[in-house]
Amino acid sequence: MAISQIISLFLLHLLLPLASISLSQSSHQLICEVGTGNGGSIGGTSPLPASLSKLLIKGGTVVNAHRQERADVYVEDGIIVAVKPNIKVGDEVTVLDATGRYVMPGIKSFKFFMAYKGTFMVDDAVLLRGMKRCKSLGALAMVHAENGDAVFEGQKRMIERGITGPEGHALSRPPMLEAEATGRAIRLASFVNTPLYVVHVMSIDAMEEIAKARKTGQKVIGEPVVSGLVLDDSKLWDPDFITAAKYVMSPPIRESGHNKALQAALSTGVLQLVGTDHCTFNSSQKAFGIDDFRKIPNGVNGIEERMHLVWDTMVESGQISVTDFVRITSTECARIFNIYPRKGAILVGSDADIIIFNPNSSFEINPRSHHSRTNTNVYEGRKGKGKVEVTISRGRIVWKDDELKVAPGSGKYIPMPPFGFLFDGIEKIDAKLVSSFKAPVHRFKSDV
Amino acid sequence: MAISQIISLFLLHLLLPLASISLSQSSHQLICEVGTGNGGSIGGTSPLPASLSKLLIKGGTVVNAHRQERADVYVEDGIIVAVKPNIKVGDEVTVLDATGRYVMPGIKSFKFFMAYKGTFMVDDAVLLRGMKRCKSLGALAMVHAENGDAVFEGQKRMIERGITGPEGHALSRPPMLEAEATGRAIRLASFVNTPLYVVHVMSIDAMEEIAKARKTGQKVIGEPVVSGLVLDDSKLWDPDFITAAKYVMSPPIRESGHNKALQAALSTGVLQLVGTDHCTFNSSQKAFGIDDFRKIPNGVNGIEERMHLVWDTMVESGQISVTDFVRITSTECARIFNIYPRKGAILVGSDADIIIFNPNSSFEINPRSHHSRTNTNVYEGRKGKGKVEVTISRGRIVWKDDELKVAPGSGKYIPMPPFGFLFDGIEKIDAKLVSSFKAPVHRFKSDV
Amino acid sequence: MAISQIISLFLLHLLLPLASISLSQSSHQLICEVGTGNGGSIGGTSPLPASLSKLLIKGGTVVNAHRQERADVYVEDGIIVAVKPNIKVGDEVTVLDATGRYVMPGIKSFKFFMAYKGTFMVDDAVLLRGMKRCKSLGALAMVHAENGDAVFEGQKRMIERGITGPEGHALSRPPMLEAEATGRAIRLASFVNTPLYVVHVMSIDAMEEIAKARKTGQKVIGEPVVSGLVLDDSKLWDPDFITAAKYVMSPPIRESGHNKALQAALSTGVLQLVGTDHCTFNSSQKAFGIDDFRKIPNGVNGIEERMHLVWDTMVESGQISVTDFVRITSTECARIFNIYPRKGAILVGSDADIIIFNPNSSFEINPRSHHSRTNTNVYEGRKGKGKVEVTISRGRIVWKDDELKVAPGSGKYIPMPPFGFLFDGIEKIDAKLVSSFKAPVHRFKSDV
Amino acid sequence: MAISQIISLFLLHLLLPLASISLSQSSHQLICEVGTGNGGSIGGTSPLPASLSKLLIKGGTVVNAHRQERADVYVEDGIIVAVKPNIKVGDEVTVLDATGRYVMPGIKSFKFFMAYKGTFMVDDAVLLRGMKRCKSLGALAMVHAENGDAVFEGQKRMIERGITGPEGHALSRPPMLEAEATGRAIRLASFVNTPLYVVHVMSIDAMEEIAKARKTGQKVIGEPVVSGLVLDDSKLWDPDFITAAKYVMSPPIRESGHNKALQAALSTGVLQLVGTDHCTFNSSQKAFGIDDFRKIPNGVNGIEERMHLVWDTMVESGQISVTDFVRITSTECARIFNIYPRKGAILVGSDADIIIFNPNSSFEINPRSHHSRTNTNVYEGRKGKGKVEVTISRGRIVWKDDELKVAPGSGKYIPMPPFGFLFDGIEKIDAKLVSSFKAPVHRFKSDV
Repeated sequence: MAISQIISLFLLHLLLPLASISLSQSSHQLICEVGTGNGGSIGGTSPLPASLSKLLIKGGTVVNAHRQERADVYVEDGIIVAVKPNIKVGDEVTVLDATGRYVMPGIKSFKFFMAYKGTFMVDDAVLLRGMKRCKSLGALAMVHAENGDAVFEGQKRMIERGITGPEGHALSRPPMLEAEATGRAIRLASFVNTPLYVVHVMSIDAMEEIAKARKTGQKVIGEPVVSGLVLDDSKLWDPDFITAAKYVMSPPIRESGHNKALQAALSTGVLQLVGTDHCTFNSSQKAFGIDDFRKIPNGVNGIEERMHLVWDTMVESGQISVTDFVRITSTECARIFNIYPRKGAILVGSDADIIIFNPNSSFEINPRSHHSRTNTNVYEGRKGKGKVEVTISRGRIVWKDDELKVAPGSGKYIPMPPFGFLFDGIEKIDAKLVSSFKAPVHRFKSDV
Repeated sequence: MAISQIISLFLLHLLLPLASISLSQSSHQLICEVGTGNGGSIGGTSPLPASLSKLLIKGGTVVNAHRQERADVYVEDGIIVAVKPNIKVGDEVTVLDATGRYVMPGIKSFKFFMAYKGTFMVDDAVLLRGMKRCKSLGALAMVHAENGDAVFEGQKRMIERGITGPEGHALSRPPMLEAEATGRAIRLASFVNTPLYVVHVMSIDAMEEIAKARKTGQKVIGEPVVSGLVLDDSKLWDPDFITAAKYVMSPPIRESGHNKALQAALSTGVLQLVGTDHCTFNSSQKAFGIDDFRKIPNGVNGIEERMHLVWDTMVESGQISVTDFVRITSTECARIFNIYPRKGAILVGSDADIIIFNPNSSFEINPRSHHSRTNTNVYEGRKGKGKVEVTISRGRIVWKDDELKVAPGSGKYIPMPPFGFLFDGIEKIDAKLVSSFKAPVHRFKSDV
Repeated sequence: MAISQIISLFLLHLLLPLASISLSQSSHQLICEVGTGNGGSIGGTSPLPASLSKLLIKGGTVVNAHRQERADVYVEDGIIVAVKPNIKVGDEVTVLDATGRYVMPGIKSFKFFMAYKGTFMVDDAVLLRGMKRCKSLGALAMVHAENGDAVFEGQKRMIERGITGPEGHALSRPPMLEAEATGRAIRLASFVNTPLYVVHVMSIDAMEEIAKARKTGQKVIGEPVVSGLVLDDSKLWDPDFITAAKYVMSPPIRESGHNKALQAALSTGVLQLVGTDHCTFNSSQKAFGIDDFRKIPNGVNGIEERMHLVWDTMVESGQISVTDFVRITSTECARIFNIYPRKGAILVGSDADIIIFNPNSSFEINPRSHHSRTNTNVYEGRKGKGKVEVTISRGRIVWKDDELKVAPGSGKYIPMPPFGFLFDGIEKIDAKLVSSFKAPVHRFKSDV
Repeated sequence: MAISQIISLFLLHLLLPLASISLSQSSHQLICEVGTGNGGSIGGTSPLPASLSKLLIKGGTVVNAHRQERADVYVEDGIIVAVKPNIKVGDEVTVLDATGRYVMPGIKSFKFFMAYKGTFMVDDAVLLRGMKRCKSLGALAMVHAENGDAVFEGQKRMIERGITGPEGHALSRPPMLEAEATGRAIRLASFVNTPLYVVHVMSIDAMEEIAKARKTGQKVIGEPVVSGLVLDDSKLWDPDFITAAKYVMSPPIRESGHNKALQAALSTGVLQLVGTDHCTFNSSQKAFGIDDFRKIPNGVNGIEERMHLVWDTMVESGQISVTDFVRITSTECARIFNIYPRKGAILVGSDADIIIFNPNSSFEINPRSHHSRTNTNVYEGRKGKGKVEVTISRGRIVWKDDELKVAPGSGKYIPMPPFGFLFDGIEKIDAKLVSSFKAPVHRFKSDV
């Protein structure tokens, strides 16, 4: 039976109303929306025609998180069936030449459905209850960590001072509020003894909390996002409202310095993988908050740009190796959500979600080139080394020669089994803790 | 007008109901109950007879936090009128010989009245509101820092496991819950930009939060208590319920190692002063929780033992100097609550609250020798160097030759002016912060 | 006067003599002595007879660092040629049934040749020179981190106090000296911008230095050893000299608490792999220091016990998963020394160094059962879960049914290519640093 | 070859030659050269004429580190003889009106004689020996903390790259080298158990080492200097050599951000007092390094500017109170060097070194207004709040109405008694440590 998996616990925007944290096994089926990592739109593809069902990628360097090797990759019916040098095939097979290229797991950014993305704030009692429920289901507790009460206070302060523009967004929720909530979630998860996943870590302050916890052996996953790694907050002060508004997301993009520190932490495994908080709105939608930053829809683009920007920022800069790149953009996510090696690897039996990446080419981002249904792109104008030349989704070429080859279809639901590797040993640690109690003590009561 | 000063913000036991944080200027007059530090009972003394109104302490070493010097101290009508060598007086003056002794500021531990020591839990919105109110009044925000929701959960866990004895008290509220709440209070106080006083810091974890904040310049006061400095939690596992129950206080006394670390932090000013959470209950009262540790009244004794135990633990061990001793037991408290140098010093014009301390004598604590109305003493049997030989309260000898000389009277209310030194410069820092906003930005809106 | 060697800089596996840090490109071919990790003796095996050259391991769970899977493993001529389910073979193949067992990369602990394990102490100038040389060769700088001058001073202190026994060893070199040297080596490696490998991290203090550096993105590898993870220093106070002396190693085994903290750091990747400082001496050799702890030969056993003790301490306790176990005992070491995936993995093409591990069996360590040529075993009497049932070295069964099957032969030299993955990107980071200098500035000189 | 001095161990104010760390008890009488902190020249004044020997300062607010109070100050023969309100005096007394002003301990920065400011580099063995000698003498070990070998390497690197200008000074000795040496000195001082004074702390990195040590109770004093608190390194890139060169000092002035962090640490006592590394050179002297930054004489001015700049940066900004100001600029230094309360306080019996400070006036620094014999002033053009209106040196007005009133005379030697308050308890801590050894163990040797 496919059991669900993720319960996201939001400190600020509550996922679940207090009364209904007791999800049924069926209702919170955890389901992920598959989006192409580059060159395609979000969502999956239409069913494969038979003629495209056989594919050979020749001459490239196959990169997995655990190794890189010169090998060909042969795909049938959307599944990788061979990874070895010099594969020979017949005429009916589509052949892609990957000489001088890296052949890497595609992708994919997983987007979790959340039944109730509410606007309530959870208190610690609810958070604790949610964590306990997650633990019993083998589901990973996820938090967006900001102190909601304090953010509310900060917003009020700004409005009272007449600061109604996008800069008020950043000023109302400084890093200390992210750090506070991160530290709190970590301590409560430790108290419950369940793994924790902190989404979009945006500040040094929050990262430090995660580093501290991991040093003590606690299972905490910290996920920075592309915007936090490569941008800074200066554009929120842009005199053009539309320009400034497109940088509004939560936790906010921080001032310069936080980005470099997050990159460093990512490079040595203090943070584990790169997410996108991809959630875009066009100019008209962003303009909804023209008179009040609190009404600007939160979110920046990033899904398409992720591979290019992470490559340029982390690999091209010399901070990580190519195998690390696959690990932080693909493998670690699949492992954490327990769908590895079906996803996140180029191994026999894996889904054929593959990109062919040319490290010697270069990229430039402009709004015309990307495929989100939005005219706001926070990375506009960025150039760098490395280019995704081909994107393959479940065995089908969806992007090639800078062109979309296949119209996007609906996403495919991937069941995520509960009790992923982060849950290994949890019951033993519980048992050890209980035995350390040396309790209950058998007592008498002295006369007094 | 003397305005009041302290609003204590309790995370666990709420001071103020949500609806009434708007204390009137008069109702929260902050008032302190004066208790003798040794040899006398809690509370002050009866009015002075005229014949005792002149007192000369000769030949001792007067110790203030800022210096020690060989000097005599002359007192009239409860006020120190001279501190200098070789004071000559007439026959009508009572003379005490302090040769070879230290003459130090007495005391006194200040006990704050709290209008509503409730049992509610405050949420962050209330905490923020309280801190803002404190700031506007010039009152010091004080927190007892433990995460109430998690403690509640922890207690439930213990009871469910059949752990109903005093050891369940410690097991249900581990240091991480103290650290979490300490860190949260610190971040919120920083967000509000108001000084914070953390009462009874009991763990390394909470101390680390305070140290981190102080390193960034934040005005946070950390107060360990005698029990946290000198005891460990082992007695909570004592098979005799009465013995175990008398060690129940919150946050709980921690396992060995925390005490030494708190001493170290106190010796270098990471923590600033020693309090007592003096709040005693006798065996019958403690026995109320015989079947459920949650019903054991919280509190251990300490007021009388404080000077002896702190001396022995901190000075006799070589960790601090004699002037430091006066600072952490007396001066710093008076400064923080803005009643220095009336209290906390032996200066001309100060109240004559004085102890004469013999560093070459020794002490032993036993329940018969102490004067709290309780038969439970957590320090029973302790011996050490140093002894308070005379205690003088507002010019009157209340303890001498191991005997109580004057029956305790009622305490005296000491008005504490608001806006103590911790508030110096706060408005400038606020102004600097606001000017750093570079906001609001004057904006246009581009066509889209 | 001979001073003990404390801060050593090992160039790959060569400790260079002070005077000639000038390896030729050819001479630093890295060479490792392969020792069996369990059940066999140190060193390799004799040449394979043809009849043993084909081997099938059936029905087990193959565990690599990157995944575990149900698969058979087929070996020819010492090399793994297939890893997949249901492999069919002919009669000439030796078949091992691994049903219910884990099939994991063996073992092996790499022992580096050190041409000149000198007794000199290097100063910082030499350390810097060595690091620069390592960087230019693509060789990993390795340090044993203790402050030699201070250790010398500490030893003198002990002898002067009449403390000549093994407890003097620990007392003369407290954790602060390990932390100091670790921090220094880390800063100097950062200054040179070259990766650093800290061997046998024994204390919280040293671990904290590594954690701090990694948080900033620095490439520092921290290697705890089995003795540091599972023992404490109490036996050094044993009244029997022989018992106490066998626990003497450097840095010393620390007091209880350090071991747990190192386990925690290892579980989350703050430390990366487990080494052994296997270097044993028998009772007669240890007795050389009967009158002076400085003469006790340094070293404890551990190679054979490593797999069992790490499994029991880290996996059986619930702290890490089975794939993590393979990573920290095998894969990470092979990756770091650039011989992965020839070593450290069960992949097609890897050397067939394999163990078959029964997680439901149990082990007990006694001096009769281990194979080091020594009668001192610091783990004597330890019991736990998990047992290595078969050990295969380059395709040959060397240990089975609690019996040594093949006499040990000489080790095999494995060349280690320089410029392993830790060197990826170093030149880019150098270039970025230099461009950040914005120097030299073109200058004029004003009149003065 | 002359190598630059980097890690110096100053014995109180004596830097001992490497070969003879053997001060006699008499020779280490600590001696300080008294320089005026403002408005006067360095050095003391000529003998007082009788007519100036009586002085009354009326109507001001007297500020000591322990309190501020409205009081008059009466001085005779260079000594303060009364501090109390409403002092009445005869006609022969010079009266200064200090209404609306602060009357504070002067100035003074203590300049220590160093018999041998050598140019050798000490190794750890010498450092340890020096620390032990300091401890036995009751003298405070002082270090300038930078790793000399690494600085030498860094300088070479710059020169090889053609970076010969002042920016090469900063680039060759980054904060990590200051942190390394600070951490090392701290650990060694802890090992010896003697107090340590770290002069001119210039970086966050070094400050963090001090903070960490103090948290564990270690007696470490950290002294930032004015330049480190208020400047940043940008001027070292100035295209005019003379401008850039005047900012050259060691450890170097750091990039922006370090200054604010040092201010914060100073405000809460993580750092304890403000020094000046006052050591000025004029343009011609600085020009000595026109072709090689290693030849630029190290040092910036600061003695005169110290009071104004610290006031403006720390008090006027809201970070500390007026009493804190006196503590960090005067009292703490006098206490540490054991000449308090003769110096560092306005108490009866103290030397009459006094400034009258007008917090409502303002200052501007220009080279014409300062009195160092140099035409380079790194603070040129700075304006701020607060002004020293009168400077009194041992009872004599030396500066008033923006004019020098008395020609500077020679300094006066102030003997500094050894074993200041930092040494309190050291022998007890030593004794406790030794008793914790539980050694030597009485041993037998088992048969083997």
